[in-house]
Amino acid sequence: MKERILALIEQGKYADIRKELIEMNVVDIAQLFEEIDRQKLLVIFRILPKDIASDVFAYIPNELQKYIVESISDKEIKSIIDELFLDDTIAFLEEMPSNIVKKVLKNTDEETRKLINQFLNYPENSAGSIMTIEFVDLKKEMTVKEALQHIKETGVDKETIDNCYVIDNNRILEGVISIRKLILSEDSALIKDLMQKDAVYINTHDDQEKMASLFKKYDLLSMPVVDNERRLVGIVTIDDVIDVIEQANTEDIQKMAAMQPSEEKYLKTNALVLAKHRIIWLLILMISATFTGKIIRKFDDVLQTVVVLASFIPMIMDTGGNSGSQSSALVIRGLALGEIRLKDAFRVLWKEIQVGCLVGLALSTVNFLRIYFLEKTDFMVSLTVSITLLLTVILAKIVGGILPILAKKCKLDPAIMAGPLITTVVDAVALTIYFSTAVWLLGI
Amino acid sequence: MKERILALIEQGKYADIRKELIEMNVVDIAQLFEEIDRQKLLVIFRILPKDIASDVFAYIPNELQKYIVESISDKEIKSIIDELFLDDTIAFLEEMPSNIVKKVLKNTDEETRKLINQFLNYPENSAGSIMTIEFVDLKKEMTVKEALQHIKETGVDKETIDNCYVIDNNRILEGVISIRKLILSEDSALIKDLMQKDAVYINTHDDQEKMASLFKKYDLLSMPVVDNERRLVGIVTIDDVIDVIEQANTEDIQKMAAMQPSEEKYLKTNALVLAKHRIIWLLILMISATFTGKIIRKFDDVLQTVVVLASFIPMIMDTGGNSGSQSSALVIRGLALGEIRLKDAFRVLWKEIQVGCLVGLALSTVNFLRIYFLEKTDFMVSLTVSITLLLTVILAKIVGGILPILAKKCKLDPAIMAGPLITTVVDAVALTIYFSTAVWLLGI
Repeated sequence: MKERILALIEQGKYADIRKELIEMNVVDIAQLFEEIDRQKLLVIFRILPKDIASDVFAYIPNELQKYIVESISDKEIKSIIDELFLDDTIAFLEEMPSNIVKKVLKNTDEETRKLINQFLNYPENSAGSIMTIEFVDLKKEMTVKEALQHIKETGVDKETIDNCYVIDNNRILEGVISIRKLILSEDSALIKDLMQKDAVYINTHDDQEKMASLFKKYDLLSMPVVDNERRLVGIVTIDDVIDVIEQANTEDIQKMAAMQPSEEKYLKTNALVLAKHRIIWLLILMISATFTGKIIRKFDDVLQTVVVLASFIPMIMDTGGNSGSQSSALVIRGLALGEIRLKDAFRVLWKEIQVGCLVGLALSTVNFLRIYFLEKTDFMVSLTVSITLLLTVILAKIVGGILPILAKKCKLDPAIMAGPLITTVVDAVALTIYFSTAVWLLGI
Repeated sequence: MKERILALIEQGKYADIRKELIEMNVVDIAQLFEEIDRQKLLVIFRILPKDIASDVFAYIPNELQKYIVESISDKEIKSIIDELFLDDTIAFLEEMPSNIVKKVLKNTDEETRKLINQFLNYPENSAGSIMTIEFVDLKKEMTVKEALQHIKETGVDKETIDNCYVIDNNRILEGVISIRKLILSEDSALIKDLMQKDAVYINTHDDQEKMASLFKKYDLLSMPVVDNERRLVGIVTIDDVIDVIEQANTEDIQKMAAMQPSEEKYLKTNALVLAKHRIIWLLILMISATFTGKIIRKFDDVLQTVVVLASFIPMIMDTGGNSGSQSSALVIRGLALGEIRLKDAFRVLWKEIQVGCLVGLALSTVNFLRIYFLEKTDFMVSLTVSITLLLTVILAKIVGGILPILAKKCKLDPAIMAGPLITTVVDAVALTIYFSTAVWLLGI
C-alpha cells in the first residue's frame, strides 16, 4: 500500500492518491506523511478532504505540524482549527513556539480563542489540560426519543457520544447515561429514570494520574470534568488516558534508573538535554559513593594484611545492590498500582525479612561452597565473605522494601528510592559488615 | 457511605442495604465485599438483583469468588454464569482450582460449556484468551434503520455496542461501523456505504502485547478478533487492554530489576514464591561478579603497593553501573513503546557516545577537583581515578544503549539487558581500565 502511494506521488498522480488516501486509516496516513518529502507533503495535505486533513494533522509529529502551519494560508489554518477537536488543538499548541500560537489564534473566532486561552492556562498534568469540550449534554426531563433527536442534531461535532452527561439549568452535573442504554430503552422513557446518578467525575485541577486510576478502577470510557461549582466543563476520553498511563510508567522507569523524568522521545532529544537529565543524579550518587570509599580507607590495614579480601568487594556490592533493587522495584510498582498502601508497611517488612533470609541463605551457601571448595580460599576468609553476604542480602531486602514506603509517607516520590539509591546505601553498610566481620574472624 | 452500610449490616437491615447497594457503582460494592465478614457477605450477595450480583462477582478477588461458588447452590451458580460476560467467566475460571471449574461447568448449558472449553484452550496471553463473544454483528445489506432495530433486539446482552462489526454469510469480517455513525446517519442509508472497510483486526492466537500496541496506535475502543479464515469470533474491549498494558509494564519493571516476571500481586504472594522469582538472577549475577573479583586478584600486587586505590573501587563501580542503567532503561522503554526500532541502532550508539563524553567529562572533572584538592589524594592516583571514571562512563553508556537493541535483534527480551546485567559487565571492564591505568601512570 505504502509503496504504491509513494510511487503515485513520484508520478504526480494526485487524483489517484486522493482516492487511495481517503480509504486509509488516518493514523496510517499520518505515518506516511513522515516519509514524504516536505514540498510534496504540502500538496498532498491540501488535496485531502477537510475533515480527513484535520484528523491527520492531529496525528503527525510536532515538527510537521509546525512546518504545515508555517506554510499554509490563514484561511487554511482556520479551516483546520475549526475541524480539530479542542483537546487536539490544545495538545498541538502546547508544543508550538509563540509565533505559531499567535498565528493560529489570529485565525480563530473570538469564542474559540477564549476557550484555547482558558485551556492553555490549566496546570500542566491537570485533568483540565487534556479534556475536550465536544461532548453531549442532556436534560433529565428529556425522553429517550428527545435525547436521541438532540444527539442527532448536535452530535456530529462531538468527540464521543458513547456516554452522554445530564446537567441541570446551571450546568451542574446530575448523572450519566450511555448511548447503549438510550438505544435499548423505550422511546418514551425519561432520562432521569434511566441515568446513573453517581457519575464518577473529576475536577479540572485534579492530577491526571489520579484521573487515570479512576478510569482503571471503574473501567470507564470517558469521564466528566467539572469546575469547583461541580459545573460540567468538559470530558476526558480513554484514548488520552492511555497516553497518561504510558507516560506515568515511562517517568517511573526513568526515575527508577536515576534520571530526571522527561516527556520527550529519546531519538528526538539532543545529547545535551539527555546529559542534563542524567548528570544530577549521577553526581549525587557519585559523591555518596565516596562514603563507601571512606569505609574502605578506614580499614586499609585489614586490606593490607589480607589483600584477597578486596577481590570479594565487587561480588558483595553487586549482590547487595541487586537484592535491594528487586525489593524496591516490586514495592514501588505495587505503590504505583495501588496494590500496596502505606498501612501495609509492616506486612512488606515481614515479607522482605522472610525473603531476605531464604535468598540470603541460599546465596551464601552457594558462595561458601564455591570459594572454599572450588577456589580453595582460606576457611576464615570464606566464612567472612559468606556471613557478610547473608547479612547484606537480608539488610538490602529490608532497606529496598521499606525506603519506598517511607518516601511516600514523607510525600516524596517512591520511584526515586529505586536501585541506584538503595545500592549506595547498601554498599556502605555491606562493607562495614564485611570489614568488621573480617576483623572479628581473622583476628586482625 | 461505606460506614453507613456496614452499620446497616450490623443491624441486619437487609431491605435497606439492598436499596443502598443498587444505587452504588458495582466496583464500590465489590470493594465493600472485601471488608464484610464472609457469612454476612453471602447473605448480601444473595439479596442483590441478579444482574448486579454477577457484575459484582466479576470485580471481587479470586478467593472471594471461590468462597461464594463453594457456598451457593447449583442453581445460583447457573444464574451467575448466565449473566456474566464470557470474558469475565473465563478470567474467573482460569484462576480457580479444577473442582470449582468442574462445579461451574456442570451448571452451564451444553453450548456455553463448549465455548468455555474452547476459550480456556487459547494460549495464555493470546488475544483469544481475553476476548468476549458478546458483540453486535451486522450485514452490509442492512439499512441504518434495520441495523438499529437489530441492535435493539439483540443488544441487551452485548458487552459493548460502541462499535458494530459487519460480516458476510460465512461470518467473514467485512468492516466496522460505530454506533455514533449509525445514530447520526439517515435511516435509509445502507451499512455498506457507511462502514469502514479496513477494520483493524487481530488473530485469536496473536499476542496480547501486539494487540495493545494496535489499540494505542489507532486509538481504538474495541477490536475484532478473527480466526485463521478471517471469520469473526470475538471482540476485545479497551478496559481489558488497559490491564494488558499495565501487566506488560509491571513485567518489564520486574525484568529490569532482575526478577522473573510474575502476575501475582506482591502482598498476596508468599515469601517462598517471591524468593523463587528472585534467586535465579541473583545467583547468575553473583557468579558473574566473581569474574570482577578475579581481575582484582590479578592486580593484587598493585593494590598491595597502593592500598588507597581500593577505596575508589565502590565509587567507580557505582557510577559506571548507574550510567549504564540510565542508558539501558531509556532504550528498553523506547523499544517497548516502539519509539526506537532495530534500525536505529547506530543513532542510539552515536547519541550515547555524545552523552557519555559530556557526562563523563563533567563527572571526572568534579571528581578530580574533589579528591585532589579537597581530599589531598596523590596527584597520580587522582589522575588514575579520573581517567578511569571518564572511560568507564563512556563505555557504560555505549554498553547500556546497545545491549538492549542487540538482545532484541537476537529475539531476546530487551528488558533483561537492564541495570543489573549491564552493571556486571561494566564492573569488569571498569576495574580492568582502573588497574591498567594505575600500572601505567604509577609505574608499578
